[in-house]
Amino acid sequence: MTISTTDKTPFDDDKLHEECGVFSVYDHDDAAALAALGLHALQHRGQEATGIVACDENGQFLAHRALGLVSEAFGAQYVIDRLKGRTAIGHNRYATTGETMVRNIQPLYADLSFGGFALAHNGNLTNAHALRQKLVNDGAIFQSTTDTEVVIHLMAVSRKKTVAEKMVDALKQVEGAYSFVAAATGLVIGVRDPHGIRPLVLGRLGDAHILSSESCALDIIGAQFVRDIEPGEMVVINEKGVLSQRPFGGAPSSRFCIFEYIYFARPDSMMEGRSVYGTRREIGAELAREAPCESADLVVPVPDSGVPAAIGYAQESGIPFELGIIRSHYVGRTFIEPTDKIRHLGVKMKHNANRAFIDGKKIVLVDDSIVRGTTSKKIVEMLRAAGAKEVHMRISSPPTAHSCFYGIDTPSTEELLANRMDAKKIGKFIGVDSIAYLSADGLYRATGHAQRDNQSPQYCDACFTGDYPVRLADHEARATGAKVSSLSERLSKS
Amino acid sequence: MTISTTDKTPFDDDKLHEECGVFSVYDHDDAAALAALGLHALQHRGQEATGIVACDENGQFLAHRALGLVSEAFGAQYVIDRLKGRTAIGHNRYATTGETMVRNIQPLYADLSFGGFALAHNGNLTNAHALRQKLVNDGAIFQSTTDTEVVIHLMAVSRKKTVAEKMVDALKQVEGAYSFVAAATGLVIGVRDPHGIRPLVLGRLGDAHILSSESCALDIIGAQFVRDIEPGEMVVINEKGVLSQRPFGGAPSSRFCIFEYIYFARPDSMMEGRSVYGTRREIGAELAREAPCESADLVVPVPDSGVPAAIGYAQESGIPFELGIIRSHYVGRTFIEPTDKIRHLGVKMKHNANRAFIDGKKIVLVDDSIVRGTTSKKIVEMLRAAGAKEVHMRISSPPTAHSCFYGIDTPSTEELLANRMDAKKIGKFIGVDSIAYLSADGLYRATGHAQRDNQSPQYCDACFTGDYPVRLADHEARATGAKVSSLSERLSKS
Amino acid sequence: MTISTTDKTPFDDDKLHEECGVFSVYDHDDAAALAALGLHALQHRGQEATGIVACDENGQFLAHRALGLVSEAFGAQYVIDRLKGRTAIGHNRYATTGETMVRNIQPLYADLSFGGFALAHNGNLTNAHALRQKLVNDGAIFQSTTDTEVVIHLMAVSRKKTVAEKMVDALKQVEGAYSFVAAATGLVIGVRDPHGIRPLVLGRLGDAHILSSESCALDIIGAQFVRDIEPGEMVVINEKGVLSQRPFGGAPSSRFCIFEYIYFARPDSMMEGRSVYGTRREIGAELAREAPCESADLVVPVPDSGVPAAIGYAQESGIPFELGIIRSHYVGRTFIEPTDKIRHLGVKMKHNANRAFIDGKKIVLVDDSIVRGTTSKKIVEMLRAAGAKEVHMRISSPPTAHSCFYGIDTPSTEELLANRMDAKKIGKFIGVDSIAYLSADGLYRATGHAQRDNQSPQYCDACFTGDYPVRLADHEARATGAKVSSLSERLSKS
Amino acid sequence: MTISTTDKTPFDDDKLHEECGVFSVYDHDDAAALAALGLHALQHRGQEATGIVACDENGQFLAHRALGLVSEAFGAQYVIDRLKGRTAIGHNRYATTGETMVRNIQPLYADLSFGGFALAHNGNLTNAHALRQKLVNDGAIFQSTTDTEVVIHLMAVSRKKTVAEKMVDALKQVEGAYSFVAAATGLVIGVRDPHGIRPLVLGRLGDAHILSSESCALDIIGAQFVRDIEPGEMVVINEKGVLSQRPFGGAPSSRFCIFEYIYFARPDSMMEGRSVYGTRREIGAELAREAPCESADLVVPVPDSGVPAAIGYAQESGIPFELGIIRSHYVGRTFIEPTDKIRHLGVKMKHNANRAFIDGKKIVLVDDSIVRGTTSKKIVEMLRAAGAKEVHMRISSPPTAHSCFYGIDTPSTEELLANRMDAKKIGKFIGVDSIAYLSADGLYRATGHAQRDNQSPQYCDACFTGDYPVRLADHEARATGAKVSSLSERLSKS
Repeated sequence: MTISTTDKTPFDDDKLHEECGVFSVYDHDDAAALAALGLHALQHRGQEATGIVACDENGQFLAHRALGLVSEAFGAQYVIDRLKGRTAIGHNRYATTGETMVRNIQPLYADLSFGGFALAHNGNLTNAHALRQKLVNDGAIFQSTTDTEVVIHLMAVSRKKTVAEKMVDALKQVEGAYSFVAAATGLVIGVRDPHGIRPLVLGRLGDAHILSSESCALDIIGAQFVRDIEPGEMVVINEKGVLSQRPFGGAPSSRFCIFEYIYFARPDSMMEGRSVYGTRREIGAELAREAPCESADLVVPVPDSGVPAAIGYAQESGIPFELGIIRSHYVGRTFIEPTDKIRHLGVKMKHNANRAFIDGKKIVLVDDSIVRGTTSKKIVEMLRAAGAKEVHMRISSPPTAHSCFYGIDTPSTEELLANRMDAKKIGKFIGVDSIAYLSADGLYRATGHAQRDNQSPQYCDACFTGDYPVRLADHEARATGAKVSSLSERLSKS
Repeated sequence: MTISTTDKTPFDDDKLHEECGVFSVYDHDDAAALAALGLHALQHRGQEATGIVACDENGQFLAHRALGLVSEAFGAQYVIDRLKGRTAIGHNRYATTGETMVRNIQPLYADLSFGGFALAHNGNLTNAHALRQKLVNDGAIFQSTTDTEVVIHLMAVSRKKTVAEKMVDALKQVEGAYSFVAAATGLVIGVRDPHGIRPLVLGRLGDAHILSSESCALDIIGAQFVRDIEPGEMVVINEKGVLSQRPFGGAPSSRFCIFEYIYFARPDSMMEGRSVYGTRREIGAELAREAPCESADLVVPVPDSGVPAAIGYAQESGIPFELGIIRSHYVGRTFIEPTDKIRHLGVKMKHNANRAFIDGKKIVLVDDSIVRGTTSKKIVEMLRAAGAKEVHMRISSPPTAHSCFYGIDTPSTEELLANRMDAKKIGKFIGVDSIAYLSADGLYRATGHAQRDNQSPQYCDACFTGDYPVRLADHEARATGAKVSSLSERLSKS
Repeated sequence: MTISTTDKTPFDDDKLHEECGVFSVYDHDDAAALAALGLHALQHRGQEATGIVACDENGQFLAHRALGLVSEAFGAQYVIDRLKGRTAIGHNRYATTGETMVRNIQPLYADLSFGGFALAHNGNLTNAHALRQKLVNDGAIFQSTTDTEVVIHLMAVSRKKTVAEKMVDALKQVEGAYSFVAAATGLVIGVRDPHGIRPLVLGRLGDAHILSSESCALDIIGAQFVRDIEPGEMVVINEKGVLSQRPFGGAPSSRFCIFEYIYFARPDSMMEGRSVYGTRREIGAELAREAPCESADLVVPVPDSGVPAAIGYAQESGIPFELGIIRSHYVGRTFIEPTDKIRHLGVKMKHNANRAFIDGKKIVLVDDSIVRGTTSKKIVEMLRAAGAKEVHMRISSPPTAHSCFYGIDTPSTEELLANRMDAKKIGKFIGVDSIAYLSADGLYRATGHAQRDNQSPQYCDACFTGDYPVRLADHEARATGAKVSSLSERLSKS
Repeated sequence: MTISTTDKTPFDDDKLHEECGVFSVYDHDDAAALAALGLHALQHRGQEATGIVACDENGQFLAHRALGLVSEAFGAQYVIDRLKGRTAIGHNRYATTGETMVRNIQPLYADLSFGGFALAHNGNLTNAHALRQKLVNDGAIFQSTTDTEVVIHLMAVSRKKTVAEKMVDALKQVEGAYSFVAAATGLVIGVRDPHGIRPLVLGRLGDAHILSSESCALDIIGAQFVRDIEPGEMVVINEKGVLSQRPFGGAPSSRFCIFEYIYFARPDSMMEGRSVYGTRREIGAELAREAPCESADLVVPVPDSGVPAAIGYAQESGIPFELGIIRSHYVGRTFIEPTDKIRHLGVKMKHNANRAFIDGKKIVLVDDSIVRGTTSKKIVEMLRAAGAKEVHMRISSPPTAHSCFYGIDTPSTEELLANRMDAKKIGKFIGVDSIAYLSADGLYRATGHAQRDNQSPQYCDACFTGDYPVRLADHEARATGAKVSSLSERLSKS
């Protein structure tokens, strides 16, 4: 993921976006092919670019990285065939800037003193700028503008002996959220940050060991889910098997990203022992209990993200679930609306009201979150135009009022609707008859806790609460002076 | 659509496929842009190729045709900008052969004695081969291997005066199923075959007149639905307005394709006065009444096509509706599975079981139809592997036992599972605990009729009944000798 | 070649351009590969686009056509491999319009009543418009805007029996200059127009028969030169061998294009029994006798076209030959000069003065012709800037004062410098100390004749004399009314 | 240029190849456009890839690098437009490996502690491997496999203050042949190695300062030649003008590459005060005196490289100069010969005999050098087949018997024909009636010296004499162990 964030995303600029997915295969004849399939199953975590680095038994590394979807980048047989070796790591990247640089596509690769080294990262390092500046002053030459590269340079100058020791040496200097997969000759390393903010799971396919951001990518290749990597755990996978270490010591203090349950993860994944789909349904049921709407005729989801919570809401409330809004399967990245005159048609490119079922009805409209509110506003207008009598918005999360600095592409705090308005005003702004958000405690109940432990919260919920579990060094430096960001700007241009 | 049909389709070789969608705009500043948006909304009717021909007030025609999706073909601003003129017609084409020829992409265009003429076709002509052979013997030179081009050559040699008269002259010689949109200088023509097998609707956007295969494409551009074009009706749209003719005389004998309700059309379309989504839900409810499964724990659709019927089934039966199977959003055309060893993973590229909800459950599995049965078999295996205790298949249509010759890409009759087995054997083949198809009468009830009128059926249901409303001249000739098809083979190569 | 001509050519807008080269192979395992090599040797006759149509023993035709050079279009192994069959014909096309349409790339192909038919043309038909209009009125649908297609439609409606008879039937209706190669199942046809304006030679490679615009293309594939096809001769090559016919009867009245000797043909070709290089040297010697320049220090060619005549001039005059101007090898089609400020640098992209040899010298500058004079003017300026004391221009042909209508891309007569000025004024315009053109008689002497036979000239020299050997029907019609050209304009747009 | 060399070159594997050209512009509105034009004029020095890095007054660097010719890489207006800034440096690269990596395309760029830095190199560093290994051990991460990058890393870790000082610090550690142009914010640096093996000239265009490998690139943009940069001289060009330094101290000991005169440089360039074309003509005259061939009928050059020497030979000997071999203008990189059966046709793709002038003649065949001898052999065979009575080979340089390690792509010494045979055997091998090479003293005479000063030779002529002016550290290390080259191999794969 990149140091600079941006508000503009090509798919939907009124959604939050996961920035990355990672995947690795150790010891399989078809390592690169399996990595491509795994990345394909993780496509929802990043659609901008993708890459695989494979390593053979002679320590020879071969890479392919490209803009676009996994199916595009790895669609040609010869591309996969070229990536020889029984080890492969891969990465999906989310679109963050209009003009993405190929050199920022992960996995990153470098020739270090011990040989080749490849690294893929899901998350965001919060002190990368400061570290980078120091490294450059000491003679380091960076190839990319990613925060991730800092880790490689810290390893390059580390005086430790083994690859794993060098990596620990580097990780002890970085702050932020991360799940890394890395490959060197003869080994793969997987590691989650001490709070385990981003996910990483271990799987097994015959004798091969797999690491993946989500369990759904194990299913696609027929691998078995073994377990989640734990917060602060590093696994070194080599010919001896899977060796677990706890480089940061102590008992893990888990602060897993609760938004994975609400929106990011695929519904068929298991995360930290819970079904994502089941959790979303439970969230919907909780929402029906907290914010009922007895007079409504229909529960209508904003597809596709609102569907599981809407099913839960409908089941709990007894109000019929209907697909009152149809989502096009063909929403893609490249379709430009031709003239200003027809630009207002935009939202219908993606969603269309099922007029026959909306006309004259009182509707509970279920969505997972509201970011800027522009899409919600248009959907409500569309339902009104289709004859909806009443529209009652139900949001399956608390108000999104704070930016994420841990690997999710969010607008600046100022642009978040919930930072500027309370729920009542938001309801007025988007034009609904009523609006309700799920409470934080309701959300924690749906994830199996009695309530949010405000002393020591069970999850990272900073986007709702502003309670950031990890220090934001670069962000604070940027707030006090322009030095850091001007470096970033210059870098991003050349 | 093409003369030769094929069994192989890149997206899913176990589904039937609509072969085309058509769209036209008369008298709008942004005619080509609107056509692109309309075709985008009709993308489900053809994903292989797409084209637009625009015509300006000087009778100058400009065309753009390309392989791929509408968003790809018309994604660049300059492509749309080049298509000047207040009239435009467009076409989506379904993949029928591996190597599609650009010259087969519609709309077709020809310089006739009266000027330029463009034509787009949804359907299939059943005597095109015979007509083509005669025309070639008389000196006609064909540019494509489409059946559609026969109409243009018949018009070229017609001695009638006006464009519309020449077109009627031509249509009186062709047999089959068709909805055509055509453009000549200063006019657009829309026409449905005498049985109205394929759909065509009329809409209005300010002063502009729109023709579209489906009403959902009117919604995307903010146009109002006016009415269905009637079976056997031709409308000539010019500066005087919309002039309706009945070139084939008499009262229309409607035989609209009932499969549009079951699977092809978008759920947010209205067809022949009925909501497609509503009809599918009603079909599901009818199926629940005909084939209940009281002991089941869950109703699970095969996504996405089985969803509306599954909702109907669940509501009627009171069994909870759950997304027990998750469908990837990123199923595309180009992803090649790398080696034989991992080819069996195929089906999971598209569908994955939601194990947490399947394990230990008795499941009603709802799908719209079974073609060859290969996909159904794999999905049932996947549910079993995820721990399903029982799987009860419910199909929201009668058995598909006969090929379509009217514009749907179907396997040969021999390859259709229901042509070779009865329901019981099919159930055994795909591995379910029970299976039931909706009856023909049940299907007709769900579409608003008391039952199927076997004397004069209200729909074309030939794929279920073998009752073909239009003669199959080429098919019969092919059955009796090799001459015709060898022509087609030679043509398809050069 | 196209009906519409244009003044703008991407390579050098101050040169005349041959519009096409043709090549055919009959009965060789590697027919398409040999055709590609042959077309490569004929690249100078057309750089815009190229195509090959191959035909196998089952009458199956396969084609590949593309914009660009032969080496680009046929550079990939699989492209050639796909073109199966022991017969192949090919074509190079010169750039005539900025936006070339793929459907105009030859060889043209059509399915006629007898099977497939492919046709490639070097030359220009002077009554194509009139014929086309008549054919369209009778129901013909044209695919391209080329004049060549008229021949195919005339064949399609011919009532004659065999392919050769149909072709003769068609050719008797067309007027103009042409060398055609054509292929149908089991045969290749080659034919030159009754005056033999454009070249065509017959060669042999083992058992295979070759036809080619020039003999240099026989050398490249190791084939032996057999003979020139004669004016008005048609050869039908099939399993019986090479059968010669004289469909237009009588003794041939040869009017071979004399400009082939002066500029168009490759210097290593033999044409009508004469070495092109030798003829050019002889032309230079003739020029030295007619227009000596005794005080000069050096003979400098405008490279590369002026080199052979300059060698002849130097040898005859005894003045040393020097490469006083260097031509870049990398003059290509795509390099756009970036801003107006540096646009005047243009000519140096191609030519640079060899200052050390020019400074202080009196120079005889030899070029083959002057079209608009813009390039000559810049070259003289460049020599002056490099210190040339005197520049004496010697042109190795008579003044180019008339447009060509027989297959050479020339500006309109009005734009030709020699149409607007006499030699003295031209010399002043381009800034030389003296100028001389070769006389017509001198030119005829250099080609082996005592002088030009003004009653019955031995060559087509219409560009110098305005004496057009074939009627210009379309040109005359255009001069008297706008009907024809407006058809062409409409056609060129769609 | 790259660390690894190779024998295989796509254009002509029997020629030596210059590996690079460099060009820079300081202080011009159209800096990048001028750089593209300059590189276009230097295209003969490298056709594989090209790049430009521009820098604006804010220290923002923008780069474009691509495989292919300058006209391809910079053909689109927007590419040039994007390269904003009044400073630009550029580079052409010769094809050395089949699969070139984009990251090896120069100019290289790095963010150093003082800001952006771009570097382009013509030459080869002979101790790059050793330096690289040391830098990697200290934590440096290399981006490319070029020797050039070593200089940037040495600068990155230099403790000197200014950019120029850091560069001198780096250059004092490297050995080999180099002409560098470099850009940092507000300045351009040009430097030649202490022996001045590779060329570099200074020019002026209005207020702008230009550096270029050859003077012909000054002509193309209308710039004035100022002077050669001297061996061991560094010029720093900034707002104060052109500041000359002598970082390596002492009087320059010039060992300019004599092969630039023989073959590499463009004939319209001036080098070290001498006209390249004039020198080649003089070489030809010298050869005529050393190795006359009085009975011959014609002097025929192997085009294009043999032409100037052949003109000199003809003038000196009085034997007529004729273009007995024609070279195709369309010899490009991508044309693959289709099958083994026709592979022997290869050489005719490029050269064809002018049979009418060869038949029955005794020929002096002039070429610049013989590398492996394969091409010479084929050309002689071609002349024999065209009827040549005698062929007398005259080579305008001494035998090429030693590899170059200073920036010319040569085969290994073992593959050089002159390393394995004496002249007599070579003549027999290539099939000529007689053969003669120019003597070293003759070559020195033609370049203006009485003879070669064997104590202190005036040029680098190592390829003829094996007298290498600069130590070959990596080469010697490689000869004694495999360590270094295995590093290179690993690098070249990832």
